[in-house]
Amino acid sequence: MEPINLFDFERLAQKRLPDMTLGYYQSGARDELTLRSNREAYERVALHYRVLVDVSRRDTRTTVLGTPIALPVLVAPTAFHRLAHPDGELATARAAGRAGTIMILSTLSTTDMEAVVAAATGPVWFQLYVYKDREATRSLVQRAEAAGCEALVLTVDAPILGTRERVVRNRFHLPPGLSVRNLSGAGLDEVREAKLDSGLAAYVAERLDPSLTWADLDWLASITRLPLVVKGIVRPDDAVRAVAHGARGVVVSNHGGRQLDTAPATLDVLPAITEAVAGEAELFLDGGIRRGTDVIKALALGARAVLVGRPILWGLAVDGADGAAEIIDLLRREIDEAMALCGCPTVAAITPDLVGR
Amino acid sequence: MEPINLFDFERLAQKRLPDMTLGYYQSGARDELTLRSNREAYERVALHYRVLVDVSRRDTRTTVLGTPIALPVLVAPTAFHRLAHPDGELATARAAGRAGTIMILSTLSTTDMEAVVAAATGPVWFQLYVYKDREATRSLVQRAEAAGCEALVLTVDAPILGTRERVVRNRFHLPPGLSVRNLSGAGLDEVREAKLDSGLAAYVAERLDPSLTWADLDWLASITRLPLVVKGIVRPDDAVRAVAHGARGVVVSNHGGRQLDTAPATLDVLPAITEAVAGEAELFLDGGIRRGTDVIKALALGARAVLVGRPILWGLAVDGADGAAEIIDLLRREIDEAMALCGCPTVAAITPDLVGR
Amino acid sequence: MEPINLFDFERLAQKRLPDMTLGYYQSGARDELTLRSNREAYERVALHYRVLVDVSRRDTRTTVLGTPIALPVLVAPTAFHRLAHPDGELATARAAGRAGTIMILSTLSTTDMEAVVAAATGPVWFQLYVYKDREATRSLVQRAEAAGCEALVLTVDAPILGTRERVVRNRFHLPPGLSVRNLSGAGLDEVREAKLDSGLAAYVAERLDPSLTWADLDWLASITRLPLVVKGIVRPDDAVRAVAHGARGVVVSNHGGRQLDTAPATLDVLPAITEAVAGEAELFLDGGIRRGTDVIKALALGARAVLVGRPILWGLAVDGADGAAEIIDLLRREIDEAMALCGCPTVAAITPDLVGR
Amino acid sequence: MEPINLFDFERLAQKRLPDMTLGYYQSGARDELTLRSNREAYERVALHYRVLVDVSRRDTRTTVLGTPIALPVLVAPTAFHRLAHPDGELATARAAGRAGTIMILSTLSTTDMEAVVAAATGPVWFQLYVYKDREATRSLVQRAEAAGCEALVLTVDAPILGTRERVVRNRFHLPPGLSVRNLSGAGLDEVREAKLDSGLAAYVAERLDPSLTWADLDWLASITRLPLVVKGIVRPDDAVRAVAHGARGVVVSNHGGRQLDTAPATLDVLPAITEAVAGEAELFLDGGIRRGTDVIKALALGARAVLVGRPILWGLAVDGADGAAEIIDLLRREIDEAMALCGCPTVAAITPDLVGR
Repeated sequence: MEPINLFDFERLAQKRLPDMTLGYYQSGARDELTLRSNREAYERVALHYRVLVDVSRRDTRTTVLGTPIALPVLVAPTAFHRLAHPDGELATARAAGRAGTIMILSTLSTTDMEAVVAAATGPVWFQLYVYKDREATRSLVQRAEAAGCEALVLTVDAPILGTRERVVRNRFHLPPGLSVRNLSGAGLDEVREAKLDSGLAAYVAERLDPSLTWADLDWLASITRLPLVVKGIVRPDDAVRAVAHGARGVVVSNHGGRQLDTAPATLDVLPAITEAVAGEAELFLDGGIRRGTDVIKALALGARAVLVGRPILWGLAVDGADGAAEIIDLLRREIDEAMALCGCPTVAAITPDLVGR
Repeated sequence: MEPINLFDFERLAQKRLPDMTLGYYQSGARDELTLRSNREAYERVALHYRVLVDVSRRDTRTTVLGTPIALPVLVAPTAFHRLAHPDGELATARAAGRAGTIMILSTLSTTDMEAVVAAATGPVWFQLYVYKDREATRSLVQRAEAAGCEALVLTVDAPILGTRERVVRNRFHLPPGLSVRNLSGAGLDEVREAKLDSGLAAYVAERLDPSLTWADLDWLASITRLPLVVKGIVRPDDAVRAVAHGARGVVVSNHGGRQLDTAPATLDVLPAITEAVAGEAELFLDGGIRRGTDVIKALALGARAVLVGRPILWGLAVDGADGAAEIIDLLRREIDEAMALCGCPTVAAITPDLVGR
Repeated sequence: MEPINLFDFERLAQKRLPDMTLGYYQSGARDELTLRSNREAYERVALHYRVLVDVSRRDTRTTVLGTPIALPVLVAPTAFHRLAHPDGELATARAAGRAGTIMILSTLSTTDMEAVVAAATGPVWFQLYVYKDREATRSLVQRAEAAGCEALVLTVDAPILGTRERVVRNRFHLPPGLSVRNLSGAGLDEVREAKLDSGLAAYVAERLDPSLTWADLDWLASITRLPLVVKGIVRPDDAVRAVAHGARGVVVSNHGGRQLDTAPATLDVLPAITEAVAGEAELFLDGGIRRGTDVIKALALGARAVLVGRPILWGLAVDGADGAAEIIDLLRREIDEAMALCGCPTVAAITPDLVGR
Repeated sequence: MEPINLFDFERLAQKRLPDMTLGYYQSGARDELTLRSNREAYERVALHYRVLVDVSRRDTRTTVLGTPIALPVLVAPTAFHRLAHPDGELATARAAGRAGTIMILSTLSTTDMEAVVAAATGPVWFQLYVYKDREATRSLVQRAEAAGCEALVLTVDAPILGTRERVVRNRFHLPPGLSVRNLSGAGLDEVREAKLDSGLAAYVAERLDPSLTWADLDWLASITRLPLVVKGIVRPDDAVRAVAHGARGVVVSNHGGRQLDTAPATLDVLPAITEAVAGEAELFLDGGIRRGTDVIKALALGARAVLVGRPILWGLAVDGADGAAEIIDLLRREIDEAMALCGCPTVAAITPDLVGR
């Protein structure tokens, strides 16, 4: 089977990946209701397309925080790419660059950030977890700046790790040879097998800082010149607070349904957040994006761009950098098709009237 | 099994048609959500029937653009009838005439339009795709007029072809001996196997004009004396624009769920369009009509008549012209029954109060 | 299996009845959407029960048109009881009397009405179809009066017979020895096998009068001293008209989902009809009643009593008069239990607040 | 399989318990619609979590009627624990104490209340059924006081026993050696096999008092110094009445879907009751709690704590006191996790904004 959509890639990846990896990538928290709901939210929204607009030339390009990208899709930060493919984050960086978009590199990378940025042919943003060890955290920020990352994306929905039961049953841990490379200097790089639990949950509980508050966002702003993006928000009041504390961007996200089960679907909360933020920051959205029309809906409801996570991993698993690039390119072609069929020659033409009265 | 409803015909046709043809006819775009939603929309609307009305004589007749028809159902334009039956569009024309209604002949006919109109015993309307080659387009219009077609139906929801994934996997193309006959003079008649794609998608991308705008509707009006109907509208503002640019009729349609997946169900958007157009043009609707009660609902919500596409093809596949005629006649009998049970002796009695408080 | 609810009886009856009979009894019109919807409507309504009411003595008795009955459930008129059991309508009459309620005898009885009334130990109402042959109709009315029927129930939702496709495929007809006994004097008693159709549909088309109007209700009132009940109404305006033309009762009914498919569920339209009729006639409801709580909901929404059709036939099939009586008694015990648990010691205590805010 | 959530425990218990016991514990009334609806109500409510709150220290403690408990979960009163495990109610009492919460002991205990309270290491409340034999009832109250129970929980939704059909088919009864120990002095302790019915339904019909009214709540208050909690309310007006008659607490409950089928889901009616009671009594809720997030939702909508019934029985069945304690501890860990992920370091921080705009 030649894969022709993102679901095909998942099916192919399912045949190639070991159970522990697959369980880690696919699972959501607890009963996986938010995981499912993220996806179903797109199916409940109809696209009221326009006709007789000249769509002979479509332009999927846009900018995020001033950076031009080829399509309104970024590579979401996800952990441990070398579980999916030996080339790991290097492959992802190459794929993102080739596809003309930004890779958001996870703190929990299985490759050093410097190597990833060096291999990248496009912009890299750095996703940050704040460690209890604040010096280790400061070091991460300084290295990201030095390496040339162009923004910091602070994850705020994971003071502890949400329980993904499939992962607990699998006793997920990193196999020998893989580790959280960015923290190896600080001695915080091993994700070992835990007793009756996910090794990652133990890692997070032990090392990440659950006491983080809005004041820490100010601290972070004080130690970096990079623009800050806050990721993991589902409430208008939190989005407003993020902006007040200096965030240039907000990612409406529930961590792909992996943290708090029964958190609302991201698309469902986007409109109220769009209204609350009122253009004072750029909004992004992730969770369940699988189709070009999903992207159109997110943009019509106020997102500047979306982030795609798991599908990149399926692409990696199937064919390394080529597979990951094909995922982005498939989305680009689907977005292009949807723009043509919606009567939107440009991203700017994707307006709220497309999704309802 | 003697077929007693339209679903029976589909089941019978499924046994007779080759996979490539079946895939082409049955499929919708992408995840086929609109395909399903078109149909489900009828199931969500209840008919609040009237009692103790004299329905001893029911009259299913009406007119569309002044032309009398035996029932408020037209044959929708669909492509390539000779895939369904060797008699192809000739059989359909005979069936429509016998059943007392209008056939809308597709540009993508496997038979020359002149032959179809010659074989027809009832009115024929011509569905028009605008080619990049405008002289070829003008020629189509002139030939349609000369042949005796009584209206032009301009399809506006297909600036490019929506991806029907089943068709892509099938590498759909026309077998030897079949071609887009109406374009053979212009050398635009072949639908060849494409690499990793539907041959038809390639044909459309290469040859049809995605730059079409409302101005082209004016151009079209300027080169023909035939009344214009615009097909493929799901928004009230577009319907109003169509009327402003001279359309005498508007077909509320999402191309049978084959173009933009997650476009709204046609029945769901009909009421707002009815209100917007306010009687200044005749409204038609297609997509998922399978029961007499579906027709009643469309009329109660403002449609003058409906178009039926795929079921005609099932009729052709099962029994050529006889099968196609039986499809229309089955619908006529179901409409007649529904009118009797709704307390509507005439089409004019099918009023909005039937579908809700 | 000892049957402990009405569904059990249906399962048992299914094993005993021939396919043609079962198809006739179980089927609904067309896609059976109304059949299903009638039932689902009860599941969508919650009962907000009251506590700490003295329910040590419950009284399920009420009156309908002044006649006392042991529970707010009547036997709905259904055709051809001898298909279910050799004792046919005689068994039903005995069961209704034993259970303390009214039997509504169908025109399409397989037993002469005089014999049924003679066998009955409780009140009998006569359900009337108006024949094209008005003298035959007048004779039915006069015989019903003479036999001692206490009300006439005019069915108004069947100007023609709705198509039940299972019945058409079965070519339903009455076997030798069974006929519409009440019409044997008029020579209108045979329900023969029809070509490609239900024999009953042919019978109805040929013999019943689809020209009936409200004026005929006046005519009917003029030829009888019996109170009139109009059965088959789903619209408030029709209910008001019925009252204006002298109806003492209105049965909110869609003929058990057997006439117009996609007619609304009866429970769904009851509240608006209750409001429109405003106590000027007694309201009844049928369609899908299987549980004591269904009856409570109908009463809370304005019905005086409900009619139960198919389950009586399952009772007959399983055990003749005893089975039919057990059906009513099962319902009585379920109503009694539901009244206790709702804090309603009497039928009068079943008020609208039970079904919502 | 190591059980990691409450559903796992149910699956394990299912393998160990005999059918009659399992049927008794699992079943709901009639079609079990309320049983299912109780659970589904939690799935329809989304948790709009807060971010960047310091949740490094979470505190799941609260108080109910002034009594401190380790988490906002009480052990619901359920009957016949020795059916689940030989240690029966003694094991439950030990488990509740170990987990830091209150056990509500059922009147229908298979162990004498004095023995249960003696074995308990935490507070015990006594659930009361009022017997027709009022002296037996008075004796229960006096013994509960004397034994040291700290509150009385009067069940008001069971004037008769709702029919659980699975239980009727099983002819549920207590096996030799087990009885309603608290009533052995009054000779009311045997739950014998009944003819064609649940033995418990017969027991209840014969012995419990269906004539109970609000006046009896006054009587009860007059004979005890213990605080009264009324259990089984789904209506705001009844909750207000309970408070007016001296109840210090109200349990919003439909008896786990075991009494009136189609009673509303408890979570659905909680908000209106919260509003009506306006802080004048403490509100509790039971029915379908299986996840920590369920507890958060109940608290956000106004409950002070929830009661958990069936899962305790699964815990007992799997591993006696240890299993039951593990059930509570699993819930505590899930509540702790949900509080962290919701940005709620304390129970007081669980406010209505978490469940909607």
